[in-house]
Amino acid sequence: MTEQYKIFEATLSGTSVGNPYQDIWLKAAFTDETETVEVNGFYCDEGIYKVRFMPRKPGIWTATTRSNDPNLNGIALTCVCSSAQPGNHGRVLPRNEVRPQSAATEEDKFHFAYEDGTRFQPFGTTCYAWVNQPKAVQEQTLETLKAAPFNKIRMCIFPKFYTYNTTDPERYAFQGNAQDGFDFTRFDPVFWDDLEKRIAQLDELGIEADIILLHPYDRWGFAKMGYETDVFYLKYAVDRLCHFKNVWWSMANEFDLMPWKPVEAWESYARVVMGRDSYGHLRSIHNCNVLYDYTRPWITHVSVQRLDIYKTAEMVSEWRQLYQKPVVVDECAYEGNINLGWGNITGEEMTRRFWEGCIRGGYLSHGEVYVQYDQIWWSHGGTLHGTSPDRISFLKQVMADAPENVAPLKLTPENYVDNWDVPCLCKEDDQSYYLYYFGFFKPLFRTYKLPEGNSYELELLDTWDMTVTKLPGVYTGSIRIDLPEKQYMAIRMKKVEA
Amino acid sequence: MTEQYKIFEATLSGTSVGNPYQDIWLKAAFTDETETVEVNGFYCDEGIYKVRFMPRKPGIWTATTRSNDPNLNGIALTCVCSSAQPGNHGRVLPRNEVRPQSAATEEDKFHFAYEDGTRFQPFGTTCYAWVNQPKAVQEQTLETLKAAPFNKIRMCIFPKFYTYNTTDPERYAFQGNAQDGFDFTRFDPVFWDDLEKRIAQLDELGIEADIILLHPYDRWGFAKMGYETDVFYLKYAVDRLCHFKNVWWSMANEFDLMPWKPVEAWESYARVVMGRDSYGHLRSIHNCNVLYDYTRPWITHVSVQRLDIYKTAEMVSEWRQLYQKPVVVDECAYEGNINLGWGNITGEEMTRRFWEGCIRGGYLSHGEVYVQYDQIWWSHGGTLHGTSPDRISFLKQVMADAPENVAPLKLTPENYVDNWDVPCLCKEDDQSYYLYYFGFFKPLFRTYKLPEGNSYELELLDTWDMTVTKLPGVYTGSIRIDLPEKQYMAIRMKKVEA
Repeated sequence: MTEQYKIFEATLSGTSVGNPYQDIWLKAAFTDETETVEVNGFYCDEGIYKVRFMPRKPGIWTATTRSNDPNLNGIALTCVCSSAQPGNHGRVLPRNEVRPQSAATEEDKFHFAYEDGTRFQPFGTTCYAWVNQPKAVQEQTLETLKAAPFNKIRMCIFPKFYTYNTTDPERYAFQGNAQDGFDFTRFDPVFWDDLEKRIAQLDELGIEADIILLHPYDRWGFAKMGYETDVFYLKYAVDRLCHFKNVWWSMANEFDLMPWKPVEAWESYARVVMGRDSYGHLRSIHNCNVLYDYTRPWITHVSVQRLDIYKTAEMVSEWRQLYQKPVVVDECAYEGNINLGWGNITGEEMTRRFWEGCIRGGYLSHGEVYVQYDQIWWSHGGTLHGTSPDRISFLKQVMADAPENVAPLKLTPENYVDNWDVPCLCKEDDQSYYLYYFGFFKPLFRTYKLPEGNSYELELLDTWDMTVTKLPGVYTGSIRIDLPEKQYMAIRMKKVEA
Repeated sequence: MTEQYKIFEATLSGTSVGNPYQDIWLKAAFTDETETVEVNGFYCDEGIYKVRFMPRKPGIWTATTRSNDPNLNGIALTCVCSSAQPGNHGRVLPRNEVRPQSAATEEDKFHFAYEDGTRFQPFGTTCYAWVNQPKAVQEQTLETLKAAPFNKIRMCIFPKFYTYNTTDPERYAFQGNAQDGFDFTRFDPVFWDDLEKRIAQLDELGIEADIILLHPYDRWGFAKMGYETDVFYLKYAVDRLCHFKNVWWSMANEFDLMPWKPVEAWESYARVVMGRDSYGHLRSIHNCNVLYDYTRPWITHVSVQRLDIYKTAEMVSEWRQLYQKPVVVDECAYEGNINLGWGNITGEEMTRRFWEGCIRGGYLSHGEVYVQYDQIWWSHGGTLHGTSPDRISFLKQVMADAPENVAPLKLTPENYVDNWDVPCLCKEDDQSYYLYYFGFFKPLFRTYKLPEGNSYELELLDTWDMTVTKLPGVYTGSIRIDLPEKQYMAIRMKKVEA
């Protein structure tokens, strides 16, 4: 019995002659009589092949394998699928793909949801090379994640060669090692088994695995494999991993630091991934200095690194307008103390950037670089040392408590004077909810003209001290709210039902 | 005897019939036999007229008045001018107008100097309506300025009607009052005498008076006088004030909040000011939401209000490139706690903006809005309550100690990796000086490759705690500098002479 959105797996025996990774294809089309899902099986070494399938509806799904290896051809497979258990919501998708037309809002295109309709607001983190660390460190990372607010993690398949990250890993996606070189025609099944175990463990923690397929930080040759090998690798990666409901595809990290791969290659690689992904997971690509054209139809969401050192999460407003897709600022700089300006902002500033981005209708990812420790979270995982994760947790709860269809306040000539300086997330249709965030401003008070005919309860949120203080009474009309003259405050207004 | 750069004044008697402000013109052309300076005299009420002249060279200057009033015509005037005393350097001008061609550098066009060649680096503040306050408050403002770092002040002639500033002043530029209305054809000589006294007192303190000629915050009618009256007023203002060496002309504050005055009017007003100003004082215009075209030839320097809430003084780099003139960010928001985002940043952030702008080769102006006090500095003057002025004083000393021809480090492919994130002011020609400012970054260390063959002394500057700590020893080659992992640090490197 396979639970809905989980993985059915059949293990088959076939040829081990020649190079089955290259030579053998294996397919199966699963049907429940109403729809059909075709999957690609894959080779695991020593004559072992696997066919995986993620059923998205309960019922009986059957398939008959097809292969150019007679031993793998014509095998009948049956997946009996039970309903999803509580907490299992399937893939994350753009909200406008999930929500029924009848309930659609303009705001849907800027957000995500699980495929069963459950709300999903990404609060990501970054541990690029955590699956390439010693096993004990990987286990520690999972322990840390259990207690952390993060529900998405940016992670590479290939190991990372970069300052503070120069050690060879134990195993690689391809067979071989740094001393003797790699066989770019054969994958290492143990590496992939280990990787899949980690993806599954993330799923158990409710964490989306934002898989970075290619990246430039390399001394082994994985960044410069060439077009054919790239495609060979991408197909294998997708054939194995697309059955995990919590997988997102990031075509590359800092694609523009691999200038030897032209835009045409990325577009082609995206088509390969889409062609092999039996389900249609989220897809994006991440920049360094030059933005990718996020209007491309294959891109489901913006996965952007801030271009400006000073104006970072505030750009969410512009990027939403420009791209009309969910905006995830996957790198807004990291909390920490590294010598370079991408990784030494304070916990306060990291927290501020999260709030700015969320109130503007976008999403942020966290990262941490405290270089005095053996493991640096941004690359190795391990443990967290910064001050922002607790505050991100607080923000995550505030965002979870907000009504689902909140949107950034639209500035008009009428409301401009009171609102030009501070972002506000609100529900304008029924005037039921307003969340103002004051960032580094420290006003002694603010004034508001509340919507006529409504009464509001007000709460003062200290986003740094993580407190919510209800203000006494009920508010109507033109009001003045006294504030503690501190940075990082917010005001939440909720309509009182008559 | 009149000291060089100070004011010769002759008082003449003429007609008081009709409206001499409108009807009588009075001119004098002063010559020392090598050059001639024509000035406009002005009417002071009750048949009294004055001719003023600021001699810029020692010697004997003579003139014969000309007027359409026979009593004022043909009067011989003699100004005996002595050399400037120490501390008296004349007007401030763009440095490229002062410096001899032989010593000119590319950087001159971005900076100022006194006309005798002495260095001038503006560290301004803002007290818009200080001359419209009760006398005791004005005296208090001067007392405060004596101890403050500021050497330029932005101030209006007309009173200000705006939140926290709604009281009628005692006197106005024009005769009349708020109850009975104003005679827009007659000036109030007492008001102008008082204003001039304040300008002279500022000069004694070494403070440039950045005079705002027109502004929109008005309930008396001064913002909407119409073209003819505007010109009548501008001529009178310039005829009286241009003889003060410490005057700068700001055509308007937030010109774009007076949409009833088209750009053609501002251009015309600028020609009026230039035509009446016998000496050529600095000229600019200040924006709110829309930048003026600072490339206009009449504009001597950029007097800009930041357009973006988040990226403020950092824009100096772009504005220098765009306008090729000195860039003064005359409003980068104010330290304080007002309810609106233009006036409630921390002292830390105000100080950071000053440093960012100065290191990028520009200049900043301060302002302060703590609304719990009777006098709010930004408008009334009075006393200062913020934490930034002391730090601005520290920065002013650091900037005064820098070699004169420092310029922002030019990024090249070679130095990009070590320098993309942090601004640096340096002397690249002889590699003698580097000043790095880390802003809100808090690196644990930085690495630098020092210019080959040179040795450097290094100092760690805590720009908030206002300390300078010499690092032990002398530095050469590739170095690592350990830092205290605090915000607002700077590193100063000075070449050790062999």
